[in-house]
Amino acid sequence: MITQQTIIEAHNRIKPFIHQTPVMTSTSTDEIAGCMLFFKTENFQKVGAFKSRGAMNAVLSLTREQRARGVATHSSGNHAQALARAAKIMGTKAYIVMPRTSPQIKKQGVIGYGGEIFECEPTLRSREETLLKVVEEKGAHVIHPFNNYDVIAGQATAAKEFFDEINYLNYIITPVGGGGLLSGTGLAAKFFSPNTVVIGAEPEGADDAYRSMESGMIEPSQSDSVADGLLTNLGTKTFPIIQETVKKIITVSDVEIISAMRIIWERLKIIVEPSAAVAFAAVLKKKEEFRNKNVGIILTGGNVDLVRASKLFASV
Amino acid sequence: MITQQTIIEAHNRIKPFIHQTPVMTSTSTDEIAGCMLFFKTENFQKVGAFKSRGAMNAVLSLTREQRARGVATHSSGNHAQALARAAKIMGTKAYIVMPRTSPQIKKQGVIGYGGEIFECEPTLRSREETLLKVVEEKGAHVIHPFNNYDVIAGQATAAKEFFDEINYLNYIITPVGGGGLLSGTGLAAKFFSPNTVVIGAEPEGADDAYRSMESGMIEPSQSDSVADGLLTNLGTKTFPIIQETVKKIITVSDVEIISAMRIIWERLKIIVEPSAAVAFAAVLKKKEEFRNKNVGIILTGGNVDLVRASKLFASV
Repeated sequence: MITQQTIIEAHNRIKPFIHQTPVMTSTSTDEIAGCMLFFKTENFQKVGAFKSRGAMNAVLSLTREQRARGVATHSSGNHAQALARAAKIMGTKAYIVMPRTSPQIKKQGVIGYGGEIFECEPTLRSREETLLKVVEEKGAHVIHPFNNYDVIAGQATAAKEFFDEINYLNYIITPVGGGGLLSGTGLAAKFFSPNTVVIGAEPEGADDAYRSMESGMIEPSQSDSVADGLLTNLGTKTFPIIQETVKKIITVSDVEIISAMRIIWERLKIIVEPSAAVAFAAVLKKKEEFRNKNVGIILTGGNVDLVRASKLFASV
Repeated sequence: MITQQTIIEAHNRIKPFIHQTPVMTSTSTDEIAGCMLFFKTENFQKVGAFKSRGAMNAVLSLTREQRARGVATHSSGNHAQALARAAKIMGTKAYIVMPRTSPQIKKQGVIGYGGEIFECEPTLRSREETLLKVVEEKGAHVIHPFNNYDVIAGQATAAKEFFDEINYLNYIITPVGGGGLLSGTGLAAKFFSPNTVVIGAEPEGADDAYRSMESGMIEPSQSDSVADGLLTNLGTKTFPIIQETVKKIITVSDVEIISAMRIIWERLKIIVEPSAAVAFAAVLKKKEEFRNKNVGIILTGGNVDLVRASKLFASV
């Protein structure tokens, strides 16, 4: 189980290898949303996403023997780059199974960090089968993108830093895909800021976390949204933590996500990827609920192809 | 004349009304450029540009009587928004003469800050004639976008803050249009960081500052570049300061500007307008000159229409 101490240790372990990302505020976004917004800018994190935290913690937590045989994973993007970077820092190999449909910028990122890519079909089944083959062949240690306690503890450090800096948040909202960040944020709130309510935000087209919270079981994702980092199911390790620590899930449409992303680009003058705009979209959709509250949002990443982004903006 | 004390007083005067913008660094841009880069992110400044500094200082420096009759200017954009904001803060009116071709986002900004727009043709002559008419009609005090010592002293505070934070810059580079920022930066270096070499960067299609430095006289601008904030001539107040304090001007092509802008968006994950990318483009063009040096760049603004930006990226 992950305790308060686990998260503190994870933070100390990864600190030399990650950025303490700034918290941004803006009168203009406050006016638009009708509340006080605090944006934790993990788009400025190493490899451009919070995933650096979990991957770094997981690789640093391996034994020397495990680490020597390399690490492997399947990932639609940011975890892949993050794991490749962590492996490179620790002088070992990273074998990355990626859907052939992943954005080119994310594949280039993996190769740039010295990772080796194994392409698969964009289905969970093909990912897992390909990963199994790679592991058999290379003897590498699998670092799952979210269903791994070291990864969850690593992701929890984003919210821990956030609470260390802003100790009066009424709400903290993160997007939810597999639930690594959301479960870590839930635990961080429980241990470091128990008065902060934790909420997940999810695309309507991949609302499996919302349905899972309703049914009490892990529901499959239909996987259709511009927020391509959030298309996976919850995991057996992340879901119970989310059930315990997260109040609810708010779902938003792709149009709402793209509009929120545009406001972030235009008003905060920063680049975030569609998945990173989902939590802000949730606030804009439920303004009454957050009115005049102090609302923390984790902007999860900034890895988006500029051509793709401009097409998204033109589409709404 | 602007002394060290003038700049210190300007900084104290405007501090409550502006952001101390962060200085960003990135291993990735350092690798691309072959030197240690420090980016002063004035795109995060109030109204999205350093122009807030000069406009605020100028409005705060007026007598109560002058201020009561309102302020007026001609500006292609950021100075207009900055002056409208400064006037609003001080409870007076701003009358803004703008070329009808100015980006919509900049006009909206002026109106959003309560400024009143008077449209003119996109020529210096039409700007000046329209401004004269407005001043006669309203009795307002003209705050020139750059040829004004209070404005220059205000812009100088960006470099002063930069030197306060990074006291080992070998170079500081800013774009040059009318020369308000460059002359202010030159003076700030002279007074606060005399070992730092000051360089201006300019579009090839509007290389009047380069030619003025060669000829020793203010040369007219041909005004053709994507960097729409840099199309004006130098002023009679800015040019002599630039001659005294600036080592040289580097010119770059529009393609180089757009490529530099793309790297800033993709690697730093921040939005800058074309004019703001010109100094970085100059470093990329003259890599040998800056190799392994500590190079400070002022990223001047972030007000760019996203549709226009995507067209620029697609054009190279």
